[in-house]
Amino acid sequence: MNTIDARLEKQGIILPQPAAPVANYVPFVISGNIVSISGQIPMGPDGVAFNGKVGLDITEDDAKAAARLCGLNIIAQVRAACAGDLERVVRIVKLGGFVNCIDGYAGQPGIINAASDLMVEVFGDKGRHSRSAVGTNALPLNVPVEIDALVEIRL
Amino acid sequence: MNTIDARLEKQGIILPQPAAPVANYVPFVISGNIVSISGQIPMGPDGVAFNGKVGLDITEDDAKAAARLCGLNIIAQVRAACAGDLERVVRIVKLGGFVNCIDGYAGQPGIINAASDLMVEVFGDKGRHSRSAVGTNALPLNVPVEIDALVEIRL
Amino acid sequence: MNTIDARLEKQGIILPQPAAPVANYVPFVISGNIVSISGQIPMGPDGVAFNGKVGLDITEDDAKAAARLCGLNIIAQVRAACAGDLERVVRIVKLGGFVNCIDGYAGQPGIINAASDLMVEVFGDKGRHSRSAVGTNALPLNVPVEIDALVEIRL
Repeated sequence: MNTIDARLEKQGIILPQPAAPVANYVPFVISGNIVSISGQIPMGPDGVAFNGKVGLDITEDDAKAAARLCGLNIIAQVRAACAGDLERVVRIVKLGGFVNCIDGYAGQPGIINAASDLMVEVFGDKGRHSRSAVGTNALPLNVPVEIDALVEIRL
Repeated sequence: MNTIDARLEKQGIILPQPAAPVANYVPFVISGNIVSISGQIPMGPDGVAFNGKVGLDITEDDAKAAARLCGLNIIAQVRAACAGDLERVVRIVKLGGFVNCIDGYAGQPGIINAASDLMVEVFGDKGRHSRSAVGTNALPLNVPVEIDALVEIRL
Repeated sequence: MNTIDARLEKQGIILPQPAAPVANYVPFVISGNIVSISGQIPMGPDGVAFNGKVGLDITEDDAKAAARLCGLNIIAQVRAACAGDLERVVRIVKLGGFVNCIDGYAGQPGIINAASDLMVEVFGDKGRHSRSAVGTNALPLNVPVEIDALVEIRL
């Protein structure tokens, strides 16, 4: 068993099944050695695991859990892009995080940190990434968080 | 006449004139074999063709028409980036879609699908892309949709 | 003294100290010859220099000053990514601008132009970039503007 898979197992992290495309867009595209991952939402095995708007009807702790689940879905898509071999990940280049929140909420970075922390937990220094974290008044299916990503891989 | 131009003609798709830059930003930048396309809005031959916020003062059908028009403007810019030869498109890598909507609106993917569908209509499998689709409380000129893109081309 | 540093000095532009990472994300990642810069906020030497939402409690002029400061922070990060040598910048590829504003505000491009103009002021034609400019109902620390960037450099 290779290093990252071993780390996932040791930490008890189980990656979700990567969601299949449901439209004319796809979960990831590989261009050169960059994988562009579609915006991931907190989808769990039984469907959307978190709903709500921070400051209105979901707690910050639940929003952080949602952000971590977005991160797990990103990693699941990266694994699919790498044909199952996460050792091919060279660097998590960028996370783009959107937090569904009330006007004037100012704590987006703390929410998205749950996904950022996961990347370093799983990939070590290769997981350190550039990032944007912004608010939004509305997200698909009324989820609290959506995160997309750019990842450099070995071909 | 090459394949994609033939497909455009057969489907009766007429690309708009690509908008010229009006400031110190430009409609596209080519870096390596990636074209980064500036956020396109639903600009038609007579100016902005759609205004409004989904859930308030524009229907979902009109917002979808606006998203398709954003997509046409993206393709017009890609054609300019390829010096007129759309056969040089290797892959639509990413669409980043923003939908101007009321708080809690949850149907952004359905709106942006109108642009996603156009990409596959025009480019076939090369048009299948990664995507983010999020809401926003406000867009330039009060348009309902803005979409930017990354496209891989042959140099 | 090289050209861009000379231009900065002539124009009296003093770059801020690039902010250090405070979490598991970092201010920039270099992948190939592309630098991805994390979303920059209007951070000055004494902390956040501008707060507020356009249309509510900050003027458009102050929001433009905030956008310019975001741009200065982007350039400071680019300089760090280039080990101090801004001559290695090949092209500012993309700015992604978010303006914290009230519902229906339509002037985001005018705000983000302050950062776009700065890029051309500093880098000349290499500073002409693709761009998205959208509104948002909330940003970290209640800043009025956040901007991320992609920059091509010589290795």
